Amino acid sequence: MMSDHFLALDWGTTNLRAWVADRDGKVRLRRDFPLGVAGLAPGEAAQRFAADVRPAMAAEQLPAVLCGMIGSTLGWQAVAYADCPASFAALQGALHRIDQPGAPVWIVPGVRTQRADGCGPDVMRGEETHIFGWAMSEASRQRGTHLICHPGTHAKWARLVDNRLENFVTAMTGELFALLRQHSALRVAEAIENEDAFELGLKASGDGGALASRLFTARSRVVGGDMPSDQVESYLSGLLIGAEVAATPALLGVAAPAKVAIIGDLALCARYRRALTWHGFEADVFDGEAAVLAGLAAFYRGV
Amino acid sequence: MMSDHFLALDWGTTNLRAWVADRDGKVRLRRDFPLGVAGLAPGEAAQRFAADVRPAMAAEQLPAVLCGMIGSTLGWQAVAYADCPASFAALQGALHRIDQPGAPVWIVPGVRTQRADGCGPDVMRGEETHIFGWAMSEASRQRGTHLICHPGTHAKWARLVDNRLENFVTAMTGELFALLRQHSALRVAEAIENEDAFELGLKASGDGGALASRLFTARSRVVGGDMPSDQVESYLSGLLIGAEVAATPALLGVAAPAKVAIIGDLALCARYRRALTWHGFEADVFDGEAAVLAGLAAFYRGV
Repeated sequence: MMSDHFLALDWGTTNLRAWVADRDGKVRLRRDFPLGVAGLAPGEAAQRFAADVRPAMAAEQLPAVLCGMIGSTLGWQAVAYADCPASFAALQGALHRIDQPGAPVWIVPGVRTQRADGCGPDVMRGEETHIFGWAMSEASRQRGTHLICHPGTHAKWARLVDNRLENFVTAMTGELFALLRQHSALRVAEAIENEDAFELGLKASGDGGALASRLFTARSRVVGGDMPSDQVESYLSGLLIGAEVAATPALLGVAAPAKVAIIGDLALCARYRRALTWHGFEADVFDGEAAVLAGLAAFYRGV
Repeated sequence: MMSDHFLALDWGTTNLRAWVADRDGKVRLRRDFPLGVAGLAPGEAAQRFAADVRPAMAAEQLPAVLCGMIGSTLGWQAVAYADCPASFAALQGALHRIDQPGAPVWIVPGVRTQRADGCGPDVMRGEETHIFGWAMSEASRQRGTHLICHPGTHAKWARLVDNRLENFVTAMTGELFALLRQHSALRVAEAIENEDAFELGLKASGDGGALASRLFTARSRVVGGDMPSDQVESYLSGLLIGAEVAATPALLGVAAPAKVAIIGDLALCARYRRALTWHGFEADVFDGEAAVLAGLAAFYRGV
């Protein structure tokens, strides 16, 4: 008989978010650790888990469910991808158990698909838990077809059919934004969040094509005298998100005015909602933290 | 009466290339200086020109013609853009003269256009001299309409009609490639130039849309087991150049099977030719160094 409480970990590339929660996902304790997988040495994950995470969460005797890049070659242990179409039950059955002093640990497998555009495989680790957590929490929505957008460094767009993850694609929009604002000729000394500049960027994204050319307009508008440089970042954000929203749903065979569920950081989700609305989609926003916790709790109930 | 010889300078963001040449562009001396505009302090350009460049070229008494970012706010002196449509004669008339001990200096103005896609202005500094130099050297080609591609950090695509620069757009493909291979999740430890991977990238670029999503396939093909990581850079190059070639000509109202003149570094031009041919264009390659020198000599003959 498993403990009523468990340790839930969303252990990603740049951050580790931890909760102690009960089987229904009700939270007793929540904490972030600067232990992103990208910064871990080989073998360090297990050690940090035992020496740092468990004690800080008073969870030495609690079982744990982990999702995210912790299941990659860079993490604790490489866990094989589950293939699309993937049901919650299939992932549940493929949880990777690691026996640990005190109580066991389970790692949720990532998911792999073959892209419909013929560009080979696509992969996710962590977002599958958000997606199924969302589907479980929004009970009335489980059946039928849903388009889900999970924005972030590597945004995931997924098609869920009757609660099966049918297919998905990644768009590395967040990473492009970070690279361009930090390292490129579009870098500016000062940035002010500006709604009009964001919308100008949305308009400039067109149909999502010729992105390398449209990006340069974030520079040429400034040197050409059309835009103050402190608006470049908002413009760039609108341009990149606009281009993603214009072109990515079609890769999954979905077109406006479909309904899209945006799951993630609420401020970022609001930007995506604006872009989706502008492109004729209907969009609802759901908190990513609630979704992943619901997913981890659902997996825990099944072990 | 001007000297028979002159100092020709292509003074760009990252490098300064200098020649002593005669009025027909015949070269007596050629040298590169690590004095790119990006590394110059305010006021430093004039000082470096007098103290370093002129002595090293034995050109203390020679007049000089300069093109490139040296005419920007970061360079020697900000020279106002000429607007499209721009003829060679218009640029000649707008050369910016700076009197210097020994002999004068002229800076070629950059060119500004209004993009046909409604995304505001676009700008160039330096490429106008390559373009007109190419047109002058290829005398039989001067009349009629030409599509010119000048690849590089910020690639320029220009439409030349009866020897007037009608319109152009920039694509920051080279900079995206550098950012992605140096700073992104697509970074790899070892890269081997691979023709098949380049072609796979070309195919993966599709119609040039959904770039942020297609870029991720340079990662997911590796972690999904489809591609060795040492092929990522060639694949990425094919993907980015393919996306540019697929989408940029249309911004100038040009479609395959038009003829394209590619002017620039010959190895890079060869990659663009492959992408253009793959997309159904007819492409000829011209050496960028010969083109810019021909342009600088033509301006010198007119002063």
